[in-house]
Amino acid sequence: MYNKKDMTAPGIGYQDLRLMQGYPPPREKQVAQHNWDSPPYNRWSFQHMSQLFPVAAIHRSPGPVTELERNERSLDDVRFQRVDGGQTDLATFLTDSYTDGFLVLHQGKVVSEQYFNGMQPHTLHLLQSVSKTVVGSLVGRLIGQGRIDPQARVSHYVPELSASGYGDARVQDLLDMRTGVRFREDYTDPDAEFIQLDIASGWRERGELKSPDSIYGLLKSLSKDREHGQFFEYRSVDTDVLAWVCERACGERLPVLLSREIWSRLGAEQDANITLDCVGTALADGGMSATLRDLGRFAQMYLQGGRFNGQQIVPEEFVRACGRGSTPAFEVLYGFYVKHFPDAAYSNQCWVLDSEQGTYSARGVFGQSIYWDPASEVAIVKLSSWPDFINAEWTLNTFRACAAVVEELQRS
Amino acid sequence: MYNKKDMTAPGIGYQDLRLMQGYPPPREKQVAQHNWDSPPYNRWSFQHMSQLFPVAAIHRSPGPVTELERNERSLDDVRFQRVDGGQTDLATFLTDSYTDGFLVLHQGKVVSEQYFNGMQPHTLHLLQSVSKTVVGSLVGRLIGQGRIDPQARVSHYVPELSASGYGDARVQDLLDMRTGVRFREDYTDPDAEFIQLDIASGWRERGELKSPDSIYGLLKSLSKDREHGQFFEYRSVDTDVLAWVCERACGERLPVLLSREIWSRLGAEQDANITLDCVGTALADGGMSATLRDLGRFAQMYLQGGRFNGQQIVPEEFVRACGRGSTPAFEVLYGFYVKHFPDAAYSNQCWVLDSEQGTYSARGVFGQSIYWDPASEVAIVKLSSWPDFINAEWTLNTFRACAAVVEELQRS
Repeated sequence: MYNKKDMTAPGIGYQDLRLMQGYPPPREKQVAQHNWDSPPYNRWSFQHMSQLFPVAAIHRSPGPVTELERNERSLDDVRFQRVDGGQTDLATFLTDSYTDGFLVLHQGKVVSEQYFNGMQPHTLHLLQSVSKTVVGSLVGRLIGQGRIDPQARVSHYVPELSASGYGDARVQDLLDMRTGVRFREDYTDPDAEFIQLDIASGWRERGELKSPDSIYGLLKSLSKDREHGQFFEYRSVDTDVLAWVCERACGERLPVLLSREIWSRLGAEQDANITLDCVGTALADGGMSATLRDLGRFAQMYLQGGRFNGQQIVPEEFVRACGRGSTPAFEVLYGFYVKHFPDAAYSNQCWVLDSEQGTYSARGVFGQSIYWDPASEVAIVKLSSWPDFINAEWTLNTFRACAAVVEELQRS
Repeated sequence: MYNKKDMTAPGIGYQDLRLMQGYPPPREKQVAQHNWDSPPYNRWSFQHMSQLFPVAAIHRSPGPVTELERNERSLDDVRFQRVDGGQTDLATFLTDSYTDGFLVLHQGKVVSEQYFNGMQPHTLHLLQSVSKTVVGSLVGRLIGQGRIDPQARVSHYVPELSASGYGDARVQDLLDMRTGVRFREDYTDPDAEFIQLDIASGWRERGELKSPDSIYGLLKSLSKDREHGQFFEYRSVDTDVLAWVCERACGERLPVLLSREIWSRLGAEQDANITLDCVGTALADGGMSATLRDLGRFAQMYLQGGRFNGQQIVPEEFVRACGRGSTPAFEVLYGFYVKHFPDAAYSNQCWVLDSEQGTYSARGVFGQSIYWDPASEVAIVKLSSWPDFINAEWTLNTFRACAAVVEELQRS
């Protein structure tokens, strides 16, 4: 729990905190590269990524916006039990969990759309690793077009990676994060490879550390710990390799591909964007920012088996497979998770919550998530600026909140 | 003239040059902060500013786009005499002068809309000092609302500038660039204050130079050379002071003000953006990027005396004054200019070409311009990536091309 007087207390937005307010803002209220992902500065930065980092636009199409029908009602009083045993209601939970945007779609209609902490309908919010699911959707589409073979080796598309640990990994290993590459996804250990990725992508100042200065430079430097295709281990770099495969398979940059193949087809309202490293490579594993409603369109497309806006955007089989996956391969390292979700898995850049129901989610650090329950026709997007990278309790509470909303919508 | 085999030869776009092409691009084809405004790298960078610098969006409104009616015809064969005495036609001139986008509006309809060098209708192109005219339009609107008094002193709005050379300047002095502040607008002299502005804005690497690290820090450091209100001297910083006045008069940041007061009212197609310094201050004097067509909407608004999209966006008197101004105050330092345009002047952040006709222009280095001829109902936008900061011959040739187009449209 956070002290209510603390700068990082929930319910205190960046405007209350005076972050980046004033002309110019005083030094102690400035957000810059050295503090942007620390609390409370991330309350401002996640909505202002282009003001901190180089970004490329992921253009919407010049065509019409796909309007979302509305059937709004208050869900504030929906109650559920937190993992600590206490009861709460949705309104309290959204404030307590540093929500910036919250969207519920039921049968394709907006039931609830709420903004906090200065976020507005046109605000682009950092997706963190929800970006992986969007990149996954692109891979799915390119597989459907025959431009990528999920059984082909990475070196087939990216010869530069032949000598690295990735050379003989299959595309499907990347999609399911079952490569055998050594990469410790530890957000706080300065010796973990993740820190090198953070530096290579331009998200963290280098300081005294020696590490590759670009994302692709880092990928080339990684070696293998074990054979590919064994168990699941969450590693952001697998998605960055997927992006390189897409670029090479199509001969175009990732932001251009995401625009043409996905974003423009959704009838998105706004251009999205994605942060770039020093040579212009997009941070595929976490650098996208998008509006809440455009994420709702993406979520609805997945809920509908890849179909949206009058077209099949991602092949149905690829999307359905996002809700399935190998639990044995998952529980090797993630046993604690299986206690809460007995047939949890990871598949096609999505976290499987319930293989039987086909319920799955996209997730990003600091509280980003999309939750899909195809059987109940409910999709829920939550964008946040938690004070912590990861917080298992809050993640589980978020899913409990989603389940409670589904139950409420089923009932009425 | 440039050697046709030269990397900087006209008609060779950034894709031909392979700038930033490849995944990743080879080192010698990378565009970054150290080379972005040198030829030929500026052929790429002017269309990709968000990929190089922090930017804030200038949002369009969520409302409908103001469609531009079309009445297209080829103007390729329109001929005119260059200042060197030779004859050319428009098509040749556009290629020879490194054009990226070219738009002609006549009676509010698009007569010609052309893209070069990889530019597309949704591409945001750097406006350089055409940004000043857009900021000027905001000041005009705020004057109309009574929120800014053109006769008030700068220190009334920005007390931090009281002790600087700007303290006792009037807002109108800023609008007409008739302040007495010492600021040498020399783009190539490393000792000129302009270099300090370039560093303060984040556009140039600091190197060994000591200078203020933010735009507002620089403004505070400037002193007076002479009394305000005398003759015209082109100085970018005057516009940056105007922006600070706007922010203080309204209590909001420049990108928010430009969005709400100007961009959203135009019915723009795309968000524009503007580069930011290290504390988030927008570079008002030259940091905006916008699409060709949205500049066309802005141009048409000025052509129509500030009225567009069913509303008076900028007061008519303010816009009309853009085409007038004091020639005596102008020719003190700019006599060479008056040889070509006998009653040239500078007024309300516009270059007056012909006070009698009310013909005026917005101009930016490296070949950015808007040309208005209200009497003939013609507005012309040209966005370029010249290899030179300034080139008097090309500037004059651009205006000759515009005059020839006007004549052609009048005839037919």
